[in-house]
Amino acid sequence: MQRASMEPQSFDRVLSSMCTEPHPAARRAAERFLATNPGDPASYPAVADLEAEALEYLGEIAGLPEPHGYIASGGTEANIQAVRAARNLAGGRSESTNIVAAESAHFSFRKATGLVDVELRLVPTVGGKADLEAVESAVDDDTALVVGVAGTTEYGRVDPISDLAEIARSVDARIHVDAAWGGFLLPFTDYEWDFASAKIDSMTIDPHKVGRAAIPAGGFLVRDRAMLDALAVETPYLESASQASLTGTRSGAGVASTVAACEALWPEGYREQYERARKNATWLAEELSGRGFAVVEPELPIVAAETPQELFDALRSAGWRISRTGRGELRVVCMPHVTREILKAFLADFDRYR
Amino acid sequence: MQRASMEPQSFDRVLSSMCTEPHPAARRAAERFLATNPGDPASYPAVADLEAEALEYLGEIAGLPEPHGYIASGGTEANIQAVRAARNLAGGRSESTNIVAAESAHFSFRKATGLVDVELRLVPTVGGKADLEAVESAVDDDTALVVGVAGTTEYGRVDPISDLAEIARSVDARIHVDAAWGGFLLPFTDYEWDFASAKIDSMTIDPHKVGRAAIPAGGFLVRDRAMLDALAVETPYLESASQASLTGTRSGAGVASTVAACEALWPEGYREQYERARKNATWLAEELSGRGFAVVEPELPIVAAETPQELFDALRSAGWRISRTGRGELRVVCMPHVTREILKAFLADFDRYR
Repeated sequence: MQRASMEPQSFDRVLSSMCTEPHPAARRAAERFLATNPGDPASYPAVADLEAEALEYLGEIAGLPEPHGYIASGGTEANIQAVRAARNLAGGRSESTNIVAAESAHFSFRKATGLVDVELRLVPTVGGKADLEAVESAVDDDTALVVGVAGTTEYGRVDPISDLAEIARSVDARIHVDAAWGGFLLPFTDYEWDFASAKIDSMTIDPHKVGRAAIPAGGFLVRDRAMLDALAVETPYLESASQASLTGTRSGAGVASTVAACEALWPEGYREQYERARKNATWLAEELSGRGFAVVEPELPIVAAETPQELFDALRSAGWRISRTGRGELRVVCMPHVTREILKAFLADFDRYR
Repeated sequence: MQRASMEPQSFDRVLSSMCTEPHPAARRAAERFLATNPGDPASYPAVADLEAEALEYLGEIAGLPEPHGYIASGGTEANIQAVRAARNLAGGRSESTNIVAAESAHFSFRKATGLVDVELRLVPTVGGKADLEAVESAVDDDTALVVGVAGTTEYGRVDPISDLAEIARSVDARIHVDAAWGGFLLPFTDYEWDFASAKIDSMTIDPHKVGRAAIPAGGFLVRDRAMLDALAVETPYLESASQASLTGTRSGAGVASTVAACEALWPEGYREQYERARKNATWLAEELSGRGFAVVEPELPIVAAETPQELFDALRSAGWRISRTGRGELRVVCMPHVTREILKAFLADFDRYR
């Protein structure tokens, strides 16, 4: 048998990930609840209570005073669940049902629609955001769901959520907001993205990204309990009646660390973290721009810049975990672990290899 | 905000769960890799190497020298993936496709077939195992998958896997074995359940159950890489080309703890653990039977006994985490944490309340 190393990577060169180091309190809670299963609340009641508390926090952050939902394995599961619930509630055959999203939506929507066998209609973006006219042309009576993204994976852009909600209503479709990454940043901005500012039905908001919980902790929130009920299956041999999650056994570590992180950071810690990330992104964008590279202006703290392939390869060879947008731009996600010092070290290597 | 307790339950009264305390080495590995994401191997290469090692172990345990697959969130995801891959490979419309399984199959197959929109044909059992004649009558040219269970959730029964495989072949369907719970017990029995003893296509085998890895660590194994390819979606902005898992971000803790548990326990530690569980189940069954209760003879270490509802309720009120079969029998899963001492304490309460 080959022997792999039992040493995880350090985070000091990870610029490509939307995950980060958990908050110390979140790490402690995760370690404590490692062997619990919130998917079986009758056997593991303590973590079930914690999940209710985690949901209250997510509801508060996302402007939903009476939240329904659960802590999922991640944003992909939450997005799948939104698509699945919308399909189930729309009735009729899957084959004629469609979902409308902008090209900037996360690839999990391709996974989700292929999985539940509905059509995915992708429309263009304008300035990185869903083109409203294109969305309006794409929806019809068979549209079960319109997707808006609040913090796109590639450029950190926020779709015009209220307008998308109106278009969805005009064809009796539901609207889902994917704030998997943006959800713990947007409360400190002026964007209208949440349940309070728009008539949205469901949301993905992941504690294990900017929320600094431990993996796996995705968040799936719905305004109306019926959307959750549309996902429920009966659960024999569990002393609970039904299960709405996509997975069965779930991670107590994710649930407990969500509560611990929110206790420690909501709201002021998250605000400070956002401000630091924003300043770092602005600084990096200016530095790259000053060196003559075309930079996509950061709105939320992601920096994308057109750089030559050889430079990208050299930086990866030097150990920098970076990735590219679909258009091939170098992409840096200013997560909480990405300090100014790390960015300076990155820029030094950038200058060395360019 | 309500305040939930930050104390997880102790395992000393948990008789209903198919999860257990992780092995100490698995716990240490999980804690170390808590902040890694094997779903993004270009950013987290160390855990990606560990996943290859975890797969090698699972392949060895399940009789598959060249295993393909991955560490999933749990058995439900692995079962969903088997159904999804079979549907995708069968081609044609979902609506005409069917999956055949016995009533004893886990409820995740109802979840899976509802999700991917195929028909689930459930057939009766004989002695807790799939009725072969009923399976033979149920399959047809639209059958994409036959499911066999190697260790049913309610009674720990093993379906006749080879015979099911033959029936599947007769209609060009695939066959999936759900050994989520049984997979770390069956190598020490005479059952024919694995890739080596039957022509099966895919398997669910969960390290986070009897394998003593940390949650979340399910196992999805396929014989032929094409089955995994049938699940792949493209992954822009990750420096890897595609992703076959159902979720996106995944748990490094689950992957690393799988390797650590297998290193520590395969094969002798798992064999000893199985022998202890078998003896405990036999002992408990005899004790209950000796008290005049009808007991379903344990084959794998699960004990089911007909007990009055009041007794069940009294035991739950006394803090015992027990559950019921669909027929209402008290059900005790003899997991590694369930020692003879725990069972004696349980029996003492049983005698007190009956």
